[in-house]
Amino acid sequence: MIRWTDTTRTTGPGQNPVTAALRRRAEDGLPRRLARSVAEPDGAHLRTDEVTDWLAERLRANRFRVDRIPFAGLDGWSSAPDSGNLVHRSGRFFSVEGVGVTIAGESRPKWQEPAWHQPIIHQPEVGILGILAKEIDGVLHFLMQAKMEPGNRNVLQLSPTVQATRSNYTKVHQGAGVRYLEYFLGPRRGRVLADTLQSEHGSWFLRKANRNVVVETDDDVVPHEDFRWLTLGQIGRLLRHDNLVNMDSRTVLATLPASSTDGSRARALHTDLEMLSWITAQRARHEVRVERLPLAGVEGWHRTPTAVERADGRYFRVVAVAVQAGNREVTGWTQPLIEPAGRGVTAFLTRCFGGVPHFLVHARVEAGLLDVLELAPTVQYTPENYARLDPADRPPFLDQVLAAGPRRTRYEAVHSEEGGRFLNAESRYLVVEADPGTTPEPPEDYLWVTPGQLGTLARHARYLNVQARTLLACINTGAVETS
Amino acid sequence: MIRWTDTTRTTGPGQNPVTAALRRRAEDGLPRRLARSVAEPDGAHLRTDEVTDWLAERLRANRFRVDRIPFAGLDGWSSAPDSGNLVHRSGRFFSVEGVGVTIAGESRPKWQEPAWHQPIIHQPEVGILGILAKEIDGVLHFLMQAKMEPGNRNVLQLSPTVQATRSNYTKVHQGAGVRYLEYFLGPRRGRVLADTLQSEHGSWFLRKANRNVVVETDDDVVPHEDFRWLTLGQIGRLLRHDNLVNMDSRTVLATLPASSTDGSRARALHTDLEMLSWITAQRARHEVRVERLPLAGVEGWHRTPTAVERADGRYFRVVAVAVQAGNREVTGWTQPLIEPAGRGVTAFLTRCFGGVPHFLVHARVEAGLLDVLELAPTVQYTPENYARLDPADRPPFLDQVLAAGPRRTRYEAVHSEEGGRFLNAESRYLVVEADPGTTPEPPEDYLWVTPGQLGTLARHARYLNVQARTLLACINTGAVETS
Repeated sequence: MIRWTDTTRTTGPGQNPVTAALRRRAEDGLPRRLARSVAEPDGAHLRTDEVTDWLAERLRANRFRVDRIPFAGLDGWSSAPDSGNLVHRSGRFFSVEGVGVTIAGESRPKWQEPAWHQPIIHQPEVGILGILAKEIDGVLHFLMQAKMEPGNRNVLQLSPTVQATRSNYTKVHQGAGVRYLEYFLGPRRGRVLADTLQSEHGSWFLRKANRNVVVETDDDVVPHEDFRWLTLGQIGRLLRHDNLVNMDSRTVLATLPASSTDGSRARALHTDLEMLSWITAQRARHEVRVERLPLAGVEGWHRTPTAVERADGRYFRVVAVAVQAGNREVTGWTQPLIEPAGRGVTAFLTRCFGGVPHFLVHARVEAGLLDVLELAPTVQYTPENYARLDPADRPPFLDQVLAAGPRRTRYEAVHSEEGGRFLNAESRYLVVEADPGTTPEPPEDYLWVTPGQLGTLARHARYLNVQARTLLACINTGAVETS
Repeated sequence: MIRWTDTTRTTGPGQNPVTAALRRRAEDGLPRRLARSVAEPDGAHLRTDEVTDWLAERLRANRFRVDRIPFAGLDGWSSAPDSGNLVHRSGRFFSVEGVGVTIAGESRPKWQEPAWHQPIIHQPEVGILGILAKEIDGVLHFLMQAKMEPGNRNVLQLSPTVQATRSNYTKVHQGAGVRYLEYFLGPRRGRVLADTLQSEHGSWFLRKANRNVVVETDDDVVPHEDFRWLTLGQIGRLLRHDNLVNMDSRTVLATLPASSTDGSRARALHTDLEMLSWITAQRARHEVRVERLPLAGVEGWHRTPTAVERADGRYFRVVAVAVQAGNREVTGWTQPLIEPAGRGVTAFLTRCFGGVPHFLVHARVEAGLLDVLELAPTVQYTPENYARLDPADRPPFLDQVLAAGPRRTRYEAVHSEEGGRFLNAESRYLVVEADPGTTPEPPEDYLWVTPGQLGTLARHARYLNVQARTLLACINTGAVETS
């Protein structure tokens, strides 16, 4: 429609050096290269069945000890005199504050309280979760790290190449430099394969987002002893193990454009426009108010010497730990952590329509999300929190997931959430084939979408919540069983 | 990669009624149908040269009068005793409050203050900006409204079919029902052509978003006398007039998938992945803190009986008006409005690379944006606000735009911003061909993107700011001159 004079043919001092380099907007080759990596069950440098031995060896080689301590034992952290907020003396890292949430009646499901107060982590900075990639013998490999985190029950898990808060990489805590960070700070030394802002847990973080980025290098990188190159196929196999691939790895892997993302000719129950319109409608219909509160003003929660918690013990507690470590940026520290009350159940119902697999997403309101809601798995609950409700008022689809036998269970593993902020925060992640005979018709805040559509959404910020991204990583790396 | 059992072939009570209806994810036919409407310079019902007469006739037919009043003359509005915020007694509509903004040094351009206080409109609800579409004689027509707004210098402009705050459509002010609203509230009576949440002015609104939606109907809609069916080609021609197509129309039209959006095989200087990565990098590098303040606590601003303003008169003032009207939902009201200090200049620099037109977008931080920044036109300033600065410290590219002669000016018109909240808020909108000889190399917070890439971003919330969307509407409807 618009035909301008083509100024690239003129010459002059201001001529843009990149004029010669028009390229196709779509990165056509990338999904194919990722699929090749998914298809590779063993890596060039380490067999998959050797990974757990390597992790055990790294665990032995490094001192790491986590002890619960009273709040009075925190070093550098204190309760601000006016607000009661748990803050660090540097003013950085994060703080534990409060929020008050109200959800207007018309849009609220029965299992959700109309209003509540809760503690929440406030960390207004964008961290970097970066994975370095490299083609080895023609196959993309990803540089994964054996990293210890205080909140992980098993201490050490596979992590991204770089996992750095802004405080980390601007050296607020005066620790050692972050290894391989130079690949993720501009100007880049490599080619970007994925790069988006993505939310973290909306129930526990206030508007937190991290940069999820994958950079491919041609450099001859010799991994440090805590790092190994693995294919996506290897990571997919490792994702079938409990507590082995950490949350940060999972969310970054979910943002890679898997082969199923390449869907311009793909088919689905709903067009992409209908899916986006449904998301818009869900965001528009909710009237959610989130008000920041001082931690001391959070009603229904009380503080003991060792915890901020509810009298009924539901949801979570704020606790404190002391860490002694040998391979972290500093060798010892104390910090608050959030400890959930029980193990969550997080599951996608899946179903094939017209030969195309679909997953049932839920437009889920969470207190800490920047834009009211994001798409969550079909089920994302800690059953104990809702045990008091009449079965009819409980979150939908939980029964279908819990009752699914092995024949319908396509994927199941326990994974930890962010081990740097949450203590023993585990969820049982599942992908369960829906039984068309017993699965109720989805309410209006649920929609069937394809893996390709999930991939399209994962290219943008704030569509898929961190739990949905964990399951998408399992789908895209081949961890979910096919039949 | 995933091959599930195809459950669509089973039958049972829970079988989803939509199983038979797999469709292509991309809406392939729509860009072509929109292009057809752009190519139509006259409508089936009203010739383009008759539109201004029709608007003049509607203006005569309806009483509408706007008078400035002191704050003491506001009815239903008052200053909250503790905060000084301007609030309505219903607790709805909107309030005028304050914010304090700080921008960390490394990411701040010289023309931007490191920290400031300002009044801001707080309206935490999602309004509907809806345009009804219908195919007439094989061409898509859009139902446009002759609507009066108190802030418009010329009172009456072409508006969307529906322009409703949540207060409007839930009847807070007890006015008449909003005409054609039923097409935009679920369940829909028609097919969605576009549907996204989009921000409003980040300098004057705190985190405001509206639902921008276009619905196509097959109903036999006979327009009320304030409404007319127009093609996109007609609207494009009308966009070349000053103050004729209102802001709400422009932003909704920008979200339609124009033909140039269909870019899976399209070429550009940067791939879409590189563009999205650049946006992520821009969002991540800024450390912006926005703190809500009581209006009474906004430093550097003072209150007179008729205005809240700065001593130096810069930026804007908060004022009050009384409105008498004959064709609004209610027949008279008073309200606060924001009145900018001068007329803005809002312009895209454009340049052809390899035969493909590109526009230079700016990743622009604004106090009220939900996610730190959105993409703005190359230039978006009120020159008077920066006249005090050394020329080298002024916003870049302003000189190139102001110095462009008619040969390089592809588009120029004065448009009003939201006439329901802003008084005489006008900008001179331009599209100017860059002179490669004198245009400096873009700084890192500027990027050349194609109209197709702008269209891709406009399918999602919070990528393009409202000024960029005005110019995109001009591009997509053919208002911008081709050479």
